[in-house]
Amino acid sequence: MPTALPLSAALLSLLTAAPKAPAPAPVTGPSPQVAERLIGAALTEGHAYARLAELTDGIGPRLSGSEGEQAAVQWAKRSFEADGVKVWLEPVKVPRWVRGEESARVVGSERHRAHPLSIMALGGSVGTPAEGLTAEVIEVRSLEEVAALGEKVKGKIVLFNHSMTVAADYGKAAGLRTRGASVAAKSGAVGMLVRSLATASLRSAHTGAMRYDEGVAQIPAAAVSVEDAELLHRLLAGGPVKVELKLGCQTLPDADSFNVVAEVKGREKPQEVVLLGAHLDSWDVGTGAHDDGAGVAMVMEAARLIGKLKPAPRRTVRVVLFANEENGLRGGKAYAEAHAGELANHVAALEMDAGGFKPLGVTLRAGPGGAELVAPWLKPLDALGAGSVLQGDAGGADISPLIPARVPFVGVRVDSSRYFDVHHSWADTLDKVDPKELAQSTAAVAWVGYVLAEVPGVLPRPEAPPAEAPKPAAAPVGTPKPAAP
Amino acid sequence: MPTALPLSAALLSLLTAAPKAPAPAPVTGPSPQVAERLIGAALTEGHAYARLAELTDGIGPRLSGSEGEQAAVQWAKRSFEADGVKVWLEPVKVPRWVRGEESARVVGSERHRAHPLSIMALGGSVGTPAEGLTAEVIEVRSLEEVAALGEKVKGKIVLFNHSMTVAADYGKAAGLRTRGASVAAKSGAVGMLVRSLATASLRSAHTGAMRYDEGVAQIPAAAVSVEDAELLHRLLAGGPVKVELKLGCQTLPDADSFNVVAEVKGREKPQEVVLLGAHLDSWDVGTGAHDDGAGVAMVMEAARLIGKLKPAPRRTVRVVLFANEENGLRGGKAYAEAHAGELANHVAALEMDAGGFKPLGVTLRAGPGGAELVAPWLKPLDALGAGSVLQGDAGGADISPLIPARVPFVGVRVDSSRYFDVHHSWADTLDKVDPKELAQSTAAVAWVGYVLAEVPGVLPRPEAPPAEAPKPAAAPVGTPKPAAP
Repeated sequence: MPTALPLSAALLSLLTAAPKAPAPAPVTGPSPQVAERLIGAALTEGHAYARLAELTDGIGPRLSGSEGEQAAVQWAKRSFEADGVKVWLEPVKVPRWVRGEESARVVGSERHRAHPLSIMALGGSVGTPAEGLTAEVIEVRSLEEVAALGEKVKGKIVLFNHSMTVAADYGKAAGLRTRGASVAAKSGAVGMLVRSLATASLRSAHTGAMRYDEGVAQIPAAAVSVEDAELLHRLLAGGPVKVELKLGCQTLPDADSFNVVAEVKGREKPQEVVLLGAHLDSWDVGTGAHDDGAGVAMVMEAARLIGKLKPAPRRTVRVVLFANEENGLRGGKAYAEAHAGELANHVAALEMDAGGFKPLGVTLRAGPGGAELVAPWLKPLDALGAGSVLQGDAGGADISPLIPARVPFVGVRVDSSRYFDVHHSWADTLDKVDPKELAQSTAAVAWVGYVLAEVPGVLPRPEAPPAEAPKPAAAPVGTPKPAAP
Repeated sequence: MPTALPLSAALLSLLTAAPKAPAPAPVTGPSPQVAERLIGAALTEGHAYARLAELTDGIGPRLSGSEGEQAAVQWAKRSFEADGVKVWLEPVKVPRWVRGEESARVVGSERHRAHPLSIMALGGSVGTPAEGLTAEVIEVRSLEEVAALGEKVKGKIVLFNHSMTVAADYGKAAGLRTRGASVAAKSGAVGMLVRSLATASLRSAHTGAMRYDEGVAQIPAAAVSVEDAELLHRLLAGGPVKVELKLGCQTLPDADSFNVVAEVKGREKPQEVVLLGAHLDSWDVGTGAHDDGAGVAMVMEAARLIGKLKPAPRRTVRVVLFANEENGLRGGKAYAEAHAGELANHVAALEMDAGGFKPLGVTLRAGPGGAELVAPWLKPLDALGAGSVLQGDAGGADISPLIPARVPFVGVRVDSSRYFDVHHSWADTLDKVDPKELAQSTAAVAWVGYVLAEVPGVLPRPEAPPAEAPKPAAAPVGTPKPAAP
């Protein structure tokens, strides 16, 4: 049971001064015993890392519609059951895109010999003809530059080069990957390459989602390694450069998948739901250790540890392992639709999807007074360096469909500065996750989940989004919120 | 003309006190004008980097016997001619090994699903049957451990795991790659994998040379990425693991190639030769920018700059771009044979083959008194941090056949601490070479080459190697001397 703690006068005035604060609740602080139990277990038992090893080494990649994804769903269900946590599956139709054989090369000329290029088709791309597609390359730095070039783009392969060097650049560069093909096709391009969105490279391509605008020719689109984007840039300085691109990818009919939903019922207000989310799918390369196996391991472990508390927290803690975050967001949308009737009772939603790194603090997307509600309860995370409410929004692709229902969002920010070294690449494997850092983030997630389920008041709901805001579904998928630089 | 400089009494006593010093020569110091010209040009003209770009971007990989290698030989000849440096080709028969299609995977079991493995055949390996080779993996850490395991190795694929994490570990781990297959085959292994000899990895395999002992079964051998070696290690902790290996590599008949030899004749003692070497061949992956395009660019630029000095230095400076360092050392051996009659007049040999990194100082393999001879002439390199004689031997794979002739070796040591991030991998590309660092090393090589050709005395020759020492040809090929930690 949480123990009532004496509250300082200053803090009390802070709380009561919060505008639009919810109806006053009995002021209590967190239970030191619960803090010890949750944080102690997360830091010492190694359970989250062991789960992550099962998911990555045991199952491996799990792109929507693949056998790996199906195996992951069954593994997650079995694992929750083994943990004594109630679990069920909620059906989601997911896209099924398959990669196939792929290759690219710079065609030799009198200025240079041929060069193989390290590429990966972007998820959702159409394939090329079997014999490949050969065209001159034209290099641009932005979507706007394509339009400015006009006729010069016609019949070309457009290379979207950019200068992403740190994680904070990802959001800016992701638009090139997501939208570049259709923007280029509108000007008559026949193919699209995007410099990999990577902060480290050993000739490694990084895939990711793209989508085609309606009514525009669908042209093949691939990510090219940073090194090869630079090679093309250098060769283009000397004259025309031709590239041959072969992509065997295709989109098959939608497949049946599931959101995996588990919960620990609240003792006092079981109808009030604190949602802890992560996504179970991954790309088809690497084993999705950071993206988003780590998030899955954290929220599963939070459920396991909170599920063992006697008594249970005041509210229900619901863990959702979303389907299809990477290339469709169908799981997030399906959850919002299936649970539309209870979203008013979703008192908080949190998604972990920025890697298994050390926690830095807590972020909020809530109405005024939110920080004052939770801040005093975060003290047990101080020794992990994560006990403060940080500037910046909380969010997550899979929970973005909950924005219209004004569900408050909470985040445990992690140090994602090295996330894009491996993100969406073959190198996103278990060895990249530091067990210590994963344990620390797991502790933070378990504690924050508990706090949200136990704190006497609930977070004030944020403002409704402006009517003209883009639909959540249009947000670039697969986009985590990297830590501020 | 070098200007006679006053010499301190202390320095004079040092020189005269040197045991076995060569016959006293008129004591002079280096010409400040020449130092300005050589070092200034190397640091400001960017010529070495431009040449490196031609070699890597223009020609690309250049494995022995390939079209790329032939193109590189012709490019080098044309380039020396364009620089006004006398050049000729000396024929070398080189091995011709070709890679072909290759892949590997962990076979799925009830404990884990299948995993693709990132591998590359080792240079010289035989291929597998077209349908591949499937066997259980057995993990070892050393050559000795294979013998200790005895019968357990029979019918298995031996994984040589190791703990190379820094450049200084390379020499130790290289023996596993070079000799592992035959050692494993002696115990009945059917295949061999070696953890890539890498100090960074993004699921990247690093190839390299191997050789088969005579009279032992030739089994297929490949490097596996660090990540995949660790995956196998983890999976093996849970029980037996099977791997399927498909290598399409083969060895074709020897091909015709060349050492590219260029020289600037000495003004006083043209018969005395200072050899500056690097190797023109590379592996078939990446573009050999650090290994050894950078060395090639440095010594070519040294020849160009020294060739413009009027008058020429006292002795002949000969640049040799060796063929086939990576997988045979045929160029080094051919040079030693073709020039056997003049090796007694080779007064120094230097090979640059540890990457295009910043220079740290000068190393020597010479008789007593060598350091005292050159040290006073290195002062112009002080501002580059390279003006000291360092502890540790000088050497180089291609010049190792000159050891029996007691040719003194000189080295310009570079900071190779990051060399093995990219060495022998797809990632060894131009972008990895810092133009500033390449310019600095080029300046050091040009200056040291000039010093050796101009200093009044010659380096005392080192002791003859002991009769029981391994033949130079048996040294692991492709093995640079990384900087001491």
